[in-house]
Amino acid sequence: MNIQVILLLLLFVTLNSCSLIKSLQHPLDPLSPKEINKIRTIIQNSHLKTLSNLTYHFLDVEEPNKDDVLHWLSSSERKENRFSRRAKVVVIGGRQTHELIVDLSKGLIESNHVHNGHGYPSLTFEELLQASLLSQKDPKFLNSITRRNLNISQVSCLPLTKGWFGEVMSRREVKITCFYRNGTTNIYARPINGITIVFDLESMKVTKYMDRYRAPLPTAEGTEFHARRLEPGPTYPNTTNSKFSIQGNVIRWGDWKFHVAFNSRAGMIISTASIYDSKEKRYRRVLYRGHVSETFVPYMDPTEDWYYRTFMDVGEFGFGKAADSLQPFIDCPGNAKFIDGYLIDALGMPNKLPRAICLFERYSGDVAWRHTEIGVPGKVIRNGEPEVTLVARMIATVGNYDYILDWEFRQTGSITVGVGLTGVLEMKATSYTSTDQITEDVYGTLVAPNTIAVHHDHFVTYYLDLDVNGSENSFVRSSLQTERVRGFPSPRKSYWSIKKKVLKREADAKIRLGSEPAELIMVNPNKKTNVGNPVGYRLITGQPAYSLLADDDYPQMRNAYTKYQVWVTPYNKSERWAGGYYADQSHGLDGLAVWTRRNRRIENEDIVLWYTMGFHHVPCQEDFPIMATLQSSFELRPTNFFDKSTILYKA
Amino acid sequence: MNIQVILLLLLFVTLNSCSLIKSLQHPLDPLSPKEINKIRTIIQNSHLKTLSNLTYHFLDVEEPNKDDVLHWLSSSERKENRFSRRAKVVVIGGRQTHELIVDLSKGLIESNHVHNGHGYPSLTFEELLQASLLSQKDPKFLNSITRRNLNISQVSCLPLTKGWFGEVMSRREVKITCFYRNGTTNIYARPINGITIVFDLESMKVTKYMDRYRAPLPTAEGTEFHARRLEPGPTYPNTTNSKFSIQGNVIRWGDWKFHVAFNSRAGMIISTASIYDSKEKRYRRVLYRGHVSETFVPYMDPTEDWYYRTFMDVGEFGFGKAADSLQPFIDCPGNAKFIDGYLIDALGMPNKLPRAICLFERYSGDVAWRHTEIGVPGKVIRNGEPEVTLVARMIATVGNYDYILDWEFRQTGSITVGVGLTGVLEMKATSYTSTDQITEDVYGTLVAPNTIAVHHDHFVTYYLDLDVNGSENSFVRSSLQTERVRGFPSPRKSYWSIKKKVLKREADAKIRLGSEPAELIMVNPNKKTNVGNPVGYRLITGQPAYSLLADDDYPQMRNAYTKYQVWVTPYNKSERWAGGYYADQSHGLDGLAVWTRRNRRIENEDIVLWYTMGFHHVPCQEDFPIMATLQSSFELRPTNFFDKSTILYKA
Repeated sequence: MNIQVILLLLLFVTLNSCSLIKSLQHPLDPLSPKEINKIRTIIQNSHLKTLSNLTYHFLDVEEPNKDDVLHWLSSSERKENRFSRRAKVVVIGGRQTHELIVDLSKGLIESNHVHNGHGYPSLTFEELLQASLLSQKDPKFLNSITRRNLNISQVSCLPLTKGWFGEVMSRREVKITCFYRNGTTNIYARPINGITIVFDLESMKVTKYMDRYRAPLPTAEGTEFHARRLEPGPTYPNTTNSKFSIQGNVIRWGDWKFHVAFNSRAGMIISTASIYDSKEKRYRRVLYRGHVSETFVPYMDPTEDWYYRTFMDVGEFGFGKAADSLQPFIDCPGNAKFIDGYLIDALGMPNKLPRAICLFERYSGDVAWRHTEIGVPGKVIRNGEPEVTLVARMIATVGNYDYILDWEFRQTGSITVGVGLTGVLEMKATSYTSTDQITEDVYGTLVAPNTIAVHHDHFVTYYLDLDVNGSENSFVRSSLQTERVRGFPSPRKSYWSIKKKVLKREADAKIRLGSEPAELIMVNPNKKTNVGNPVGYRLITGQPAYSLLADDDYPQMRNAYTKYQVWVTPYNKSERWAGGYYADQSHGLDGLAVWTRRNRRIENEDIVLWYTMGFHHVPCQEDFPIMATLQSSFELRPTNFFDKSTILYKA
Repeated sequence: MNIQVILLLLLFVTLNSCSLIKSLQHPLDPLSPKEINKIRTIIQNSHLKTLSNLTYHFLDVEEPNKDDVLHWLSSSERKENRFSRRAKVVVIGGRQTHELIVDLSKGLIESNHVHNGHGYPSLTFEELLQASLLSQKDPKFLNSITRRNLNISQVSCLPLTKGWFGEVMSRREVKITCFYRNGTTNIYARPINGITIVFDLESMKVTKYMDRYRAPLPTAEGTEFHARRLEPGPTYPNTTNSKFSIQGNVIRWGDWKFHVAFNSRAGMIISTASIYDSKEKRYRRVLYRGHVSETFVPYMDPTEDWYYRTFMDVGEFGFGKAADSLQPFIDCPGNAKFIDGYLIDALGMPNKLPRAICLFERYSGDVAWRHTEIGVPGKVIRNGEPEVTLVARMIATVGNYDYILDWEFRQTGSITVGVGLTGVLEMKATSYTSTDQITEDVYGTLVAPNTIAVHHDHFVTYYLDLDVNGSENSFVRSSLQTERVRGFPSPRKSYWSIKKKVLKREADAKIRLGSEPAELIMVNPNKKTNVGNPVGYRLITGQPAYSLLADDDYPQMRNAYTKYQVWVTPYNKSERWAGGYYADQSHGLDGLAVWTRRNRRIENEDIVLWYTMGFHHVPCQEDFPIMATLQSSFELRPTNFFDKSTILYKA
């Protein structure tokens, strides 16, 4: 991969002079390689050039003002492309984190804010790779490997973020965990346990080393996984004749129009999604921006080797940085179309990620609607249509885990957001070969001899800036309550009715889902249907899960938002990352749980919905050596948004 | 439809003499037309022939002894086909309900039990049709129609079951509700409200008539729905090259082997599902029988027109009787194969239902598993496979609602059971044309001018006789509990661990799902994996829902099982219908909530899992005039059933 990066670097230096300037389609378009190069040149020519070890940790379009984007979208002068391009860049230089705003048209650094708070920006691929390689050359580590009678050439090391556990002083450090391949490419299956390595990313040195104990090494046998060879085409043909268009980053399909972008932190971002209303003869706004905001993955083993494994995949690593080049016919079906993404390396050079996102029409054999009517004399009237949807997908591989991230658009106006978890479990070595031998808490499942897969959670938190038919929205909790029949005679004694409550402030909208039945609806109180219902979109969730860690536990303090599945905040351009912007070693002083302490008004305001999809993972043997995809999803479903069903044929 | 029935009747009389005798594949095979005719002949020649108005309400294979079926399955002498065929038949004659067991080989009625308890068998299509037609000829009704200035030729009437509301004496009656088509085939959109008609099914007469008030008739405009013309083939081609076989009623696909049958009450029944274990080189049992047991659909309007609408679709009407002939390319994709079903009419004659069940391989673009590994030096190793599943589907249209009922088998050993709700809402006429005018509780949503769609629930209860690797199983609740770190130093303060509880008696296994995190696993305590885990299958549910009606309300007493989503009972051949066998006008004296009062042992016994999937339906305007399919599902997922992942290529 290191060689790959160098090759890509060389390729870009060569290509850059002749790269085509793509005309701007949309203010939220990601930065082009040409723009990235220009930004780097601006920075290299600034006062920052004197800083030691200048490394690039983030670079993307600076979030434009929402009003400006909405004005641009609605303006007929759109073609003139007068939207100024500004970038947000986070660099570390001279051991300080600089947050830069770069104006591309003016060719200058507009502002430079030095981050003095807790936490660090996401790690670069290069420093992770160096930490891994340098750890493996450390004499103490070599000694440990020799004493275990292992061959260093068969060792793979993985740097892991170390979290925060109350330390007053912090350094940019990672913890290194190592594996023995020797006969398998499934490195996670053969952990070399008992060694603690702390690696300092500033000095690029091992700063703490402990060889505490030796655990048996699980066998390589039965750990390998390979795909069978597929025959693309006949076996997995196009499912439908695709009827969507990609113009730059703007996708049109059926009545839908939306923008899709690729970002190093969130991965895929869906923006300015609108749906054409054939009755009103115009596009109506649904979602301004939606993306994964944070992913919290705490492991449930408090021992020395494992306690710190409480990952914030989005903030610490980045779902975009971890995005994988999609495999046609495997990751996406044969009818998929692909969009490339661009990332930067540690030096600020653009790297192309081919096939970062795919889009495909899906026909899974499901039924969009149907009915058979026998109530009309002398007739049996059968009707119905198969369901065809449009899926936008990316996949992030964060170490052992692969996250399949889908946004599925339906002809009904519904959006289903899906997460599929697959990949390899994190495992620890053990002397146990059978559960009969176990009398202590081992914090996981014995999935193979000498192999325990550790209990853990995944909380995938979504930022959902819904703009239901406009920016000013309210969030309504419609509770279903049992009523006794009163006031008139009825053979019935009970029924349920709806108690609607408009949630007025942030504290009202912290919702832990459970058995209490309620509908959660984002409405526009200023826009009514033909019969007077406020237009809305409803959140339909799956089986709910929330974090079970104690409130005073450090990883929970950093991810306090995972105690509730639903939050609503007033829109604020700077509030997008539920676990805080500087997530690496953060202290929980930024993020959703902190912002909402102000308990701001959320009624008839431009508001944002946050939803956390949770998985408690008790591993089982079927998850070894590879996990079958575990799916979950939520749906944003129009609820009195339209005057009537929109799935019928519009002749 | 009446003409259709007559034509089918004629067809069968003609075909019967030359129909082929299909050799018996499986003891659970449904009765063939020849067998049905033989049964009818046996009954007509018995003492029952003297009974007045003999009508057939149920006819199917009498549930064989499980031990006998299992012995037959495992026996090498299977080909000799020595399984005796016995049928269960329910007839009404001389105003009494007779439950007959007919021995086909001996050609005689083995037993005749007269049902003296409460409740009646499911209604026949013919009596429903006659109730509808005769009501429309009633002079009082004709007068009501004339006074409303309506044209009787444009009126459709629908007989509805009337439930039970504490009456001491009961008669086999239905309530008739009528609609005005005149410009639409969507009859439900134009209810003629204010008229109460009670129709006696024994005397075939209107026994109670009240014309109470007149409500405005909603307009026909905008109520019609039609499918667009599809191009089969190019637009919706085969998704995969189907690789499953159908031998009689036995389906083989991948490692799976199961039996599928069609029954007038449950609809589709999946039986003796086993999965081939390539390590053990034998089929291992998973599910003995699985099917919909009952469906409770209470409406939430306590007024005279609506209070009684508390349907038990399976017991009162029958999902098989309501099954629809599947539409190729709409209800099932182009690669589907179909199985016909046989029903009986009121005279005990066989009626063929073409395409009652479809089976198809599904490739929806999802990923079965995948991983990208960059931890092996110098390599980027990408692996994965697309997910292909096998779906067995039927669709029941019970009046206005269409239930799409799927059983999806996965290569992992997982079974996903899905329900899709579509069709037309039940609506009532109102004077309101805008929500602004409404100041009272209208028990529903104004979905169009003068049209309120009434709040209601759907509880679809499944009978799941899991036999995980054998008949003796236990049901385990694995609770996830927050633990404080104690006994050793750790920077972490908390984690969760698993507290496993084997549920010993029926009362322990009445579970209302909520926010309390737990895994529910059916295990075989007598069979361990290679590392000692008990083999199991886990129930993964969706968003939970339970009935909100008061416990002392009559419909709730009849459907008390809907207060908990999960129940476990010891296997008992006669306990299959959660709401009781004689559901029509039942008093709640039979069924799951009654049987379990004995609080029988369920540990290491042959046990049955019951799961209720619930939907609270607050209608919205998008549901009008047709509802887009609302999906829900649960999964039975192998959990330490296999020693390792089974999705990898077995070379």
